[in-house]
Amino acid sequence: MAGLSHFDADGHAHMVDVSDKAETARVAVAAGWVKMAPETLDIVTEGSAKKGDVIGVARLAGIMGAKRTSDLIPLCHPLPVSKVAVEIVPDRDLPGLRIEATVKTTGRTGVEMEALTAVSTTALTVYDMVKAVDRTMEIGGITLRLKDGGKSGRFEAP
Amino acid sequence: MAGLSHFDADGHAHMVDVSDKAETARVAVAAGWVKMAPETLDIVTEGSAKKGDVIGVARLAGIMGAKRTSDLIPLCHPLPVSKVAVEIVPDRDLPGLRIEATVKTTGRTGVEMEALTAVSTTALTVYDMVKAVDRTMEIGGITLRLKDGGKSGRFEAP
Amino acid sequence: MAGLSHFDADGHAHMVDVSDKAETARVAVAAGWVKMAPETLDIVTEGSAKKGDVIGVARLAGIMGAKRTSDLIPLCHPLPVSKVAVEIVPDRDLPGLRIEATVKTTGRTGVEMEALTAVSTTALTVYDMVKAVDRTMEIGGITLRLKDGGKSGRFEAP
Amino acid sequence: MAGLSHFDADGHAHMVDVSDKAETARVAVAAGWVKMAPETLDIVTEGSAKKGDVIGVARLAGIMGAKRTSDLIPLCHPLPVSKVAVEIVPDRDLPGLRIEATVKTTGRTGVEMEALTAVSTTALTVYDMVKAVDRTMEIGGITLRLKDGGKSGRFEAP
Amino acid sequence: MAGLSHFDADGHAHMVDVSDKAETARVAVAAGWVKMAPETLDIVTEGSAKKGDVIGVARLAGIMGAKRTSDLIPLCHPLPVSKVAVEIVPDRDLPGLRIEATVKTTGRTGVEMEALTAVSTTALTVYDMVKAVDRTMEIGGITLRLKDGGKSGRFEAP
Amino acid sequence: MAGLSHFDADGHAHMVDVSDKAETARVAVAAGWVKMAPETLDIVTEGSAKKGDVIGVARLAGIMGAKRTSDLIPLCHPLPVSKVAVEIVPDRDLPGLRIEATVKTTGRTGVEMEALTAVSTTALTVYDMVKAVDRTMEIGGITLRLKDGGKSGRFEAP
Repeated sequence: MAGLSHFDADGHAHMVDVSDKAETARVAVAAGWVKMAPETLDIVTEGSAKKGDVIGVARLAGIMGAKRTSDLIPLCHPLPVSKVAVEIVPDRDLPGLRIEATVKTTGRTGVEMEALTAVSTTALTVYDMVKAVDRTMEIGGITLRLKDGGKSGRFEAP
Repeated sequence: MAGLSHFDADGHAHMVDVSDKAETARVAVAAGWVKMAPETLDIVTEGSAKKGDVIGVARLAGIMGAKRTSDLIPLCHPLPVSKVAVEIVPDRDLPGLRIEATVKTTGRTGVEMEALTAVSTTALTVYDMVKAVDRTMEIGGITLRLKDGGKSGRFEAP
Repeated sequence: MAGLSHFDADGHAHMVDVSDKAETARVAVAAGWVKMAPETLDIVTEGSAKKGDVIGVARLAGIMGAKRTSDLIPLCHPLPVSKVAVEIVPDRDLPGLRIEATVKTTGRTGVEMEALTAVSTTALTVYDMVKAVDRTMEIGGITLRLKDGGKSGRFEAP
Repeated sequence: MAGLSHFDADGHAHMVDVSDKAETARVAVAAGWVKMAPETLDIVTEGSAKKGDVIGVARLAGIMGAKRTSDLIPLCHPLPVSKVAVEIVPDRDLPGLRIEATVKTTGRTGVEMEALTAVSTTALTVYDMVKAVDRTMEIGGITLRLKDGGKSGRFEAP
Repeated sequence: MAGLSHFDADGHAHMVDVSDKAETARVAVAAGWVKMAPETLDIVTEGSAKKGDVIGVARLAGIMGAKRTSDLIPLCHPLPVSKVAVEIVPDRDLPGLRIEATVKTTGRTGVEMEALTAVSTTALTVYDMVKAVDRTMEIGGITLRLKDGGKSGRFEAP
Repeated sequence: MAGLSHFDADGHAHMVDVSDKAETARVAVAAGWVKMAPETLDIVTEGSAKKGDVIGVARLAGIMGAKRTSDLIPLCHPLPVSKVAVEIVPDRDLPGLRIEATVKTTGRTGVEMEALTAVSTTALTVYDMVKAVDRTMEIGGITLRLKDGGKSGRFEAP
């Protein structure tokens, strides 16, 4: 099963040994979106401008979600993140909200999963807050955009 | 801000009062997918048949994720789920894995967020286990398929 | 050691047996404050009006804190809260922010600790966000204001 | 919004980037108290001498609380604490219990919030254990006493 | 795979559906021990009599551990326990400490796992506190002693 | 109370100060077993070969349990583990399952408790999954097998 490092030679799941990797500065950026009816987006953006701040609450949930990554993802190494930022931008063409999370650490493994978990938690929180008016929202487009630091080098999504 | 029940009259976020709602049997089904290169899917499905069980690990993570929902989603009510099941099926046309989660409870609020969080955590775990061979995977199609129980009645996605 | 129900006849700590108590509607209200320099309060209230919403972040942290109460307080019974609301009001005379948390549940024990934990977590979060400009803030006045439901009857602070 | 580092230039909450800070030895000391009726303090101190150890349970809760800080405080960096100690001393003049927590780490950010959270959790646990005999207790005086390590230098409360 | 209810007809792990079970009063008792050198036991029992209360700390850890059961055991249903008590008794013949945990709830599933987790966490905490003087301790004898409530009826260990 | 480092000079529990210890590579191996009826073991091993993978689920729970160690054990230092592996082998002579966990980190304290917690959580999870067919299982033999790194030197169980 060449390549799937989360399994040992017998095919048993394990948390990969990263003890011998160097502690280096690492960064990852992930993105995603929540698609909703145009009227739902109106309610969200009006509210965020005036009162009832869906975007503020979802951003905070995303930041906190990044800190819970190794609790949620079974074989993910715990590591102390040194920066988490979540941007949420309304997009009339989607229509909906576009989410982008940036996570940094100095450690022995990358922070892709932290960035993806931040995006995911942000999107779920948007859904939770808006579901009373729209049950047909869709969460999607969750991808890794950038990863740097560590020996596998820089990755940028096309 | 009519409709967004997670905010009070002043636009402040709060956890909605459900004290007066009846405890009823509730169910929710959510779905989603992880899209990957065809060769990546081959590795995953071979492994799951023989050894290195990506699907088994991801399913378990999804079930456990459902139990963490109210920890992750700020205004979500905590409630003791009475059933969680996660189905993961390879789809050559996607190509990738299709995920469906079913959650039940007897309580005062619905379990949509628990089902969506289960799908989301399952998808992130697939990503984590397979990212060593494919960094261009995409998580998407996360939607509510069914919701029943509670006074707002039955909802089925079109 | 009459009265300290958290210890058995031998003085050993235990989680009190509430199995035979009735499930009743319960509410608790707790209060507290964060005292700060007048100029610090200016920064907080300006920010909350315009951008950099200390009060919004702290409110959310308080709501989430209420859900973690039985994780933090060793002998506290876990129970699913059915409502949490946190009000934060600037007070020029303090000077600082006044905090009030209301928690409800239908259960076998009261929610005083949940309300007090919400106030406490809100106050700590204010401190965290503002400490870069003021290290001499003080958190205080944390008291139970109201408790109702359950067989010990209604309590209102004088 | 000069000074509030937890917000970016647009006023959005984020977890501050500390990647470029040096890992240095850091210490913080925080204090607080729980005020109670003189007869309540008698029960607590007698119990702790003989059986029913309120102070022992509260101390342990405070130590564990310090480890949960970054879970509770949304924008707080996670960091592995290298020492936590909580002292609890009865004070007849208060009357009540005085609490002091000392936390150390070697890391990129300070441990003020860990020390304050330890004090806060200790105080809440005292309250929980004693509330059956006294509902009018007050938690207060929660302040930072000392902070050292890191580039902002030593701070000692007046 | 007759009998293993945690797997569905296809052999996939799931959290069993207990929605249709009645909420009944349930109790479980589990036991276990930590075996240590006689001199180690002397240190523990002296300390607990005078100062340095290993038994008190371990008991509290066991009670808190019971509350974390559904977080630790993947397919375990979350349920709000209504009583947890942990007894720890020195046994010169073992030599070591004997542990017994009693857990109650009113719910749709039993609390065997909560009682076993309480015993297990208590034993691990004893180990942690004493390991500086004795690395050859053994944790064992962890069994279910009693289970009652629920439709499968009363079980008592021989 | 010479030797019990988790207590200070006054006998108060504290988290030992390890700030001045060097960060070194550390490893610990712990072992244990779950004893069951021979027919129960048949069900488990058949299932794991074909479907209904008790061993796979228990292994994953053990790995995740290692990450929760400092949450469960009150005076345990939090540290980011860099490797966790759990081996589970059927033993007809026991009869039952033998468990061995290996944990690594680069840090200021050892990882014995992480390895023991991994074994313990694995064993509890086996119990949970199999308890529907066998309530007389016993968990035992939990010991430290190996510890290396750190100034107290290498320890190997006899």
